[in-house]
Amino acid sequence: MNDAVQEIFHVTREFCARMASVRAGDLPSKAVHEGKRGVLDWLGCALAGSRHATLDPLLAVLQETGGKSQATVFGRGLKLGFLDAPIANGQAGHVLDYDDTHMGGTLLHASSPTLAALFSMAERGRVSGAEFLLAYAVGFEAGVRTGRTVPGHHRGGWHLTGTLGSIAAGVAAGKVISLDAKRLAHAMAIAATQSAGMQQNRGTMCKSFHAGKAASSGVLAALLAERGFDGSLEIIEGKRGYCRIYSDVAAPEALIDELGTSWQITRNGHKPYACGVVLHPVLDAMIAIRSQANVDPARIEAIELRVNPLVLSVTGVEEPATGLQSKFSVYHSAAVALIDGAARIPQYTDQRVSDPAVITLRRKVRATIDESLDNDQAEAVVITDGARHHAFIEHASGTADNPMSEAALEAKFMANAEPVIGPDRTQQVRELVRELDRLTDVSELVRLCA
Amino acid sequence: MNDAVQEIFHVTREFCARMASVRAGDLPSKAVHEGKRGVLDWLGCALAGSRHATLDPLLAVLQETGGKSQATVFGRGLKLGFLDAPIANGQAGHVLDYDDTHMGGTLLHASSPTLAALFSMAERGRVSGAEFLLAYAVGFEAGVRTGRTVPGHHRGGWHLTGTLGSIAAGVAAGKVISLDAKRLAHAMAIAATQSAGMQQNRGTMCKSFHAGKAASSGVLAALLAERGFDGSLEIIEGKRGYCRIYSDVAAPEALIDELGTSWQITRNGHKPYACGVVLHPVLDAMIAIRSQANVDPARIEAIELRVNPLVLSVTGVEEPATGLQSKFSVYHSAAVALIDGAARIPQYTDQRVSDPAVITLRRKVRATIDESLDNDQAEAVVITDGARHHAFIEHASGTADNPMSEAALEAKFMANAEPVIGPDRTQQVRELVRELDRLTDVSELVRLCA
Repeated sequence: MNDAVQEIFHVTREFCARMASVRAGDLPSKAVHEGKRGVLDWLGCALAGSRHATLDPLLAVLQETGGKSQATVFGRGLKLGFLDAPIANGQAGHVLDYDDTHMGGTLLHASSPTLAALFSMAERGRVSGAEFLLAYAVGFEAGVRTGRTVPGHHRGGWHLTGTLGSIAAGVAAGKVISLDAKRLAHAMAIAATQSAGMQQNRGTMCKSFHAGKAASSGVLAALLAERGFDGSLEIIEGKRGYCRIYSDVAAPEALIDELGTSWQITRNGHKPYACGVVLHPVLDAMIAIRSQANVDPARIEAIELRVNPLVLSVTGVEEPATGLQSKFSVYHSAAVALIDGAARIPQYTDQRVSDPAVITLRRKVRATIDESLDNDQAEAVVITDGARHHAFIEHASGTADNPMSEAALEAKFMANAEPVIGPDRTQQVRELVRELDRLTDVSELVRLCA
Repeated sequence: MNDAVQEIFHVTREFCARMASVRAGDLPSKAVHEGKRGVLDWLGCALAGSRHATLDPLLAVLQETGGKSQATVFGRGLKLGFLDAPIANGQAGHVLDYDDTHMGGTLLHASSPTLAALFSMAERGRVSGAEFLLAYAVGFEAGVRTGRTVPGHHRGGWHLTGTLGSIAAGVAAGKVISLDAKRLAHAMAIAATQSAGMQQNRGTMCKSFHAGKAASSGVLAALLAERGFDGSLEIIEGKRGYCRIYSDVAAPEALIDELGTSWQITRNGHKPYACGVVLHPVLDAMIAIRSQANVDPARIEAIELRVNPLVLSVTGVEEPATGLQSKFSVYHSAAVALIDGAARIPQYTDQRVSDPAVITLRRKVRATIDESLDNDQAEAVVITDGARHHAFIEHASGTADNPMSEAALEAKFMANAEPVIGPDRTQQVRELVRELDRLTDVSELVRLCA
């Protein structure tokens, strides 16, 4: 795009004007429905994640430095300030790598930053369920669409849940307090200028911290914009705008392309497995072969995988040493799924990673890149006693083209939430979320998850 | 660098091991001296900046969301939490564009993030002046050297005071609590993964916010690392490390090249003018011509400048509308300096920017790029009544090769500090900083600046 065109093509202003004017009644029922699914699934992930050991040092620091009891840390019976609770809840939501994923041109786990921000805002002032769902959808739109303006972003080494998450959280938090178009653009600029998160930290505690920090940065952006703090009104398309500095290829027009014809939240996916999403077709294949052929793991000679290139670049850890690292190991994942017939939280613990049977089998896994496969596709062959057991996955379960059923989503939520808040509250949360668009005050939901 | 070399060349670990083991007694007297100059100059900038209007919305938000009274906000008679006070002090230190600059391969204003972080740490636990100065020098080393690992970073659109500032602040804060080598590397990784700040926001309130947010991110990184929070141990040189994702050219070895033979803080510069540092040689030239030739601004026909390319890319704002924007306008700067014979805080206010005489003259300024000029050099010709008044600046005043005298530095500090804390305290601060390496508790200094 040349400078002359750019002059008249203010995509940031256009995007923010449209998002500032959209009302809850404008949201199609499919987007409302997917919003509720997203809230339920994420609350389960955040509750289950709240018990993860990475939260302990974070909460120790935030309790030392924080002060006011303003916003709830889910599952911990604790409140922190409006800027601090989102760090903890965002990290809890993402730490199990079990939270939802949008795969349309990005690989974004938008809900951890966005909902951690929005739940904090919902304790700051009364927010109805309908306003909450609208802001959630608007944040999704901001995160996914900004992601499309930076086609080289993921390849460039950025962790999108941190980088785009900050923008999603900032725009969502700005929307939920009804910022006008200009202030919403300022919120977007303030959020973008805090946008960070390096893939280099994958497998460390920082990875989930990115989601939490993004949530907090988003809340800060919205609160600053509310008070008149300003930023560039061309934060995406400007000469040194987001699409130019966070990517080697820039596509600013993607921010508003077909805006309003469909909502990105309707293409959200929910994970059946607690690990990197690009592993999911492999896991489907392993579980399919295990149930079809009843193979004895001890007699497996080799596991041969054909996978999308991202599987090796994102999840190529050969010898994971910790549960966090194993979530990015196709070798561990294929092996443990074949042995356990599952790939949920218990399959990605420090203990399971050091199990000799899993280690023996993971060393028999070979993964070959096939550029023709989409990132929700995989092929697997398991060889035992000379026999070859084969599976091809067209669309991984939990993706937009093969979505998780209502029953499976609720079962996942219950398994995640019950150990933390007990069966009664788990049931109450499920019922409140089912009617979320009619709830007058979202803080009711928060109280049940404390 | 190929992968084989990278395997054995762990620059992050090497850097952090060296920085973890260095002791206050190892710091050469020149570094101690420059450290004291840096502290004095920065305290003046932070005190003067504490009255800037951009602080008001920020403090309103932090007072709403923050809680514990832990760390002092300079010049405001106010305390915030250990993570929040640095946001305010970092912003105050940088908002006037009057704070120090390191120009050796980077354009880094290291002190705003680093000292805002360190002063917060000095209220968390007792820190002696010698430990404080050591941590300051170590943070400088981290910021400047990381900057050298990313030769394309500034050109790429990043605001270094935000991005590198986060790393400088994190390593300084980690050093001042004596983290061991491994935890210092974790602090560096946690700080790097929060590293942000876009040049697109230059001329807005976000620019100085970058410095404050970097300071806060640095404190958070150090406190998390202290409690065992981890990050990549190859955060700079890794496959998706800092030098690869924050720059199109990577030079990881620069992190440790000649480490220990000289201290980067000894090449720090102090600004005589309250604006973008690349404008300083132009301002020297304007003030020289004004005093030599006693030109009448009303009779000037043209001002012709020959400048380093950064002058137009960083400070090319033609019609600034606000004081903040005017700090990045070579046109405003040349004009106002010729009229006022100065370029300090009063020359960069919203009022001065809209003065008709300044506007008339700034439209007569023409700047031409000359690649052969260094960023501390400029040539100027002022044309009046057919006469040509000429000046060439070899090294701008305040840079490492033409440093500010002790007397000028103290005069600048007094002019900045006195209106905020009064003459007695200003004098006391000056005396304490002069003996800073013998001070047993830095919080004494903080109290004087409250």
